[in-house]
Amino acid sequence: MKKFQCPRGTRDFMPANMAKRKKVFEKIRDVFERYGYGEVCTPAFEDFELLSKKSGPEIEEEIYSFKDKSGRKLGLRFDPTVPICRIVAANSALAKPIKFYYITNMWRYDRPGAGRWREFWQAGLELIGSNKPEADAEILAVVYDSMKAIGIKNFCFKINSRKIIESFIKQAGIPESKKFGAFRAIDKLDKIGENGVKKEMKLYKISEKAINKFLDLVKSNKALGEETKELENIKKLAKSMGVDNIEIDFSIVRGIDYYTGFVFETFVRGFEELGSVASGGRYDTLIGLYSGTETPATGFGIGVDRLMETMKNDKKYSASKTFIVTVKPELGSEALKIAKKLRSENISVQTDIMGRNMKKQLEYANTSGIPYVIIIGEKELKSNKLVLKNMSKKTQKILSLMQIIKELKK
Amino acid sequence: MKKFQCPRGTRDFMPANMAKRKKVFEKIRDVFERYGYGEVCTPAFEDFELLSKKSGPEIEEEIYSFKDKSGRKLGLRFDPTVPICRIVAANSALAKPIKFYYITNMWRYDRPGAGRWREFWQAGLELIGSNKPEADAEILAVVYDSMKAIGIKNFCFKINSRKIIESFIKQAGIPESKKFGAFRAIDKLDKIGENGVKKEMKLYKISEKAINKFLDLVKSNKALGEETKELENIKKLAKSMGVDNIEIDFSIVRGIDYYTGFVFETFVRGFEELGSVASGGRYDTLIGLYSGTETPATGFGIGVDRLMETMKNDKKYSASKTFIVTVKPELGSEALKIAKKLRSENISVQTDIMGRNMKKQLEYANTSGIPYVIIIGEKELKSNKLVLKNMSKKTQKILSLMQIIKELKK
Repeated sequence: MKKFQCPRGTRDFMPANMAKRKKVFEKIRDVFERYGYGEVCTPAFEDFELLSKKSGPEIEEEIYSFKDKSGRKLGLRFDPTVPICRIVAANSALAKPIKFYYITNMWRYDRPGAGRWREFWQAGLELIGSNKPEADAEILAVVYDSMKAIGIKNFCFKINSRKIIESFIKQAGIPESKKFGAFRAIDKLDKIGENGVKKEMKLYKISEKAINKFLDLVKSNKALGEETKELENIKKLAKSMGVDNIEIDFSIVRGIDYYTGFVFETFVRGFEELGSVASGGRYDTLIGLYSGTETPATGFGIGVDRLMETMKNDKKYSASKTFIVTVKPELGSEALKIAKKLRSENISVQTDIMGRNMKKQLEYANTSGIPYVIIIGEKELKSNKLVLKNMSKKTQKILSLMQIIKELKK
Repeated sequence: MKKFQCPRGTRDFMPANMAKRKKVFEKIRDVFERYGYGEVCTPAFEDFELLSKKSGPEIEEEIYSFKDKSGRKLGLRFDPTVPICRIVAANSALAKPIKFYYITNMWRYDRPGAGRWREFWQAGLELIGSNKPEADAEILAVVYDSMKAIGIKNFCFKINSRKIIESFIKQAGIPESKKFGAFRAIDKLDKIGENGVKKEMKLYKISEKAINKFLDLVKSNKALGEETKELENIKKLAKSMGVDNIEIDFSIVRGIDYYTGFVFETFVRGFEELGSVASGGRYDTLIGLYSGTETPATGFGIGVDRLMETMKNDKKYSASKTFIVTVKPELGSEALKIAKKLRSENISVQTDIMGRNMKKQLEYANTSGIPYVIIIGEKELKSNKLVLKNMSKKTQKILSLMQIIKELKK
């Protein structure tokens, strides 16, 4: 018999993992909402033409695309920003700034690897309508607060501007037509090293001389002019919002073609090999591509899968707090009544639905890691009492239902 | 310039709508967890062969399918149950009963209509490993508590058993090979009426005599034997869990082929035209198809989209509680500090990131429905005070930051 598995690069999330993810999502959600962002949710698939309009050839290759039964070419969302640009382009009456956030899955036909999945999750936001450094500083502050909220203390932001990299491209004599190739190569500096970058740039037929000059500029940490001032200004504004871990780094460029200015990445100390766990930047021309009206925008995505890799696992997970054991099948309806009462007090409780005897019921509670068991015995029931058993301590008490509720709510 | 839209049958959820959905999801989630169910999340797409193995020809037609770049045939999830069966088949060590829930989207290439979408959402659960009526009663109790938790008071369950319908099929002389066709036809009784059902059954080449006999039996409300006793037993058990609105109805059959026994639907009074908002039943052979080991199971899905149609809209939605207005641009960093303090108190606050003047800032707060505005004026700031303006009442007070926090937390 054929055993089916998840398609390559995808996975199932089981309850213990989901419980941890939910906690992280809730904390991120709280931070986003404290800054006045509202959640949006777009369809899993879009018109392929929309998705491919400004994503760059590498990403276009990675989109899961298909035709529906009336011949429309569709593609699975590979990025949350493009569908949000569609919404903004179609709703010119939305008051600016538009503050949208999302927590969602997306798909890329990519080579799976550490923290890299074909179905992956991002939590992020888009801040649309402002071309001011205050906007870029705000998104850094949101990421900062999100990281702190979920308990990640030791991380840093590396920021740069596409404008600085573009001036390096010009100074190095790299032709405009090869710009995005150079961006995608330098974006991998952390992963493939300087020689890897050189090799990749050569694939785009950039001359050795230009490559060396370009890399020297990237490493020089020297850039002059308005763009550097702009980065310093963002850094200062973010500082007044509590963000104290920003470094300017000219090698940060981001792989996607649509960025136009400020870009950033986020690294967790001790987990550098995962790459950036949260990144984004300014894309002042993307919305105009869909709407015809230039609309400045900035935003970021937190790579939830990578982030989870940096976090410790929770203690033993159990879906319920207590299990009600019946010593005789005739006590089943008594168990249902007690369960009803406990649930109305917001306590998670299971009853036997397998027709098992007492011993098997206790075994199930034990195997499942359920921390408490309530035993309904005929003798105790006559005096309106029940047995409450603490499964890890292996202790038990004879208590009234009200006392048990108190105990379980502690 | 081409204006892009959502693909047909899909939609964007905007913040006001998402806020309402989140509230509903949280309430449902709480109920599911109180019964000891743990959340799982499976990939958006699966091996097409897995999806089509027992779905019936109508549904197979409706699956969005495609080949990935290495030629694997995949399909978008059209139902949450099949992927969960895959998990159970692959993990024979899971302790029974397995109690999994999900809140997720899925996709069917169906004709869009009232409450019917090509991308739709379901919240539901699977209870795997028990063939007892206690299990079926428990899932009714979970739906009951979920409906009550989200404020739906006036609804009823209609329950039946596939075994009863199968005995009607036999009594009417309908051949076994045409059984599923008859099921799919009778499933539409509410929507297309008796004549519609007759017409559809004729398409399956079932004789007029057999059709009439079958419909007579369905309408008769008479069924004898073990199966009816089983339904009565489920009803009684559910009653002891507080479920007081169950009717036995022999026309309830469900359209999907994999059900084997108990089935149910849920109707909200005053919204009967939407059809069932929550349905499910017992599927004792489906897991065996994938694992080789017969494993009894029961479960349900709540159709979130239909459910939302029965609920009133919330009052005016705003993503944030307050906006900080600066009378002069120089006060910007003061605004950031105050925002930081408010956010640390869990209050949602926006600051100006557009470089707008005071008048425009107030206009934005007003348009966006933000209920409070804090105004930082130079004069008040000297005495450590701020202006708190209630936007709907059009009143204002001069208060300290601590007093404002108290006021906003009320």
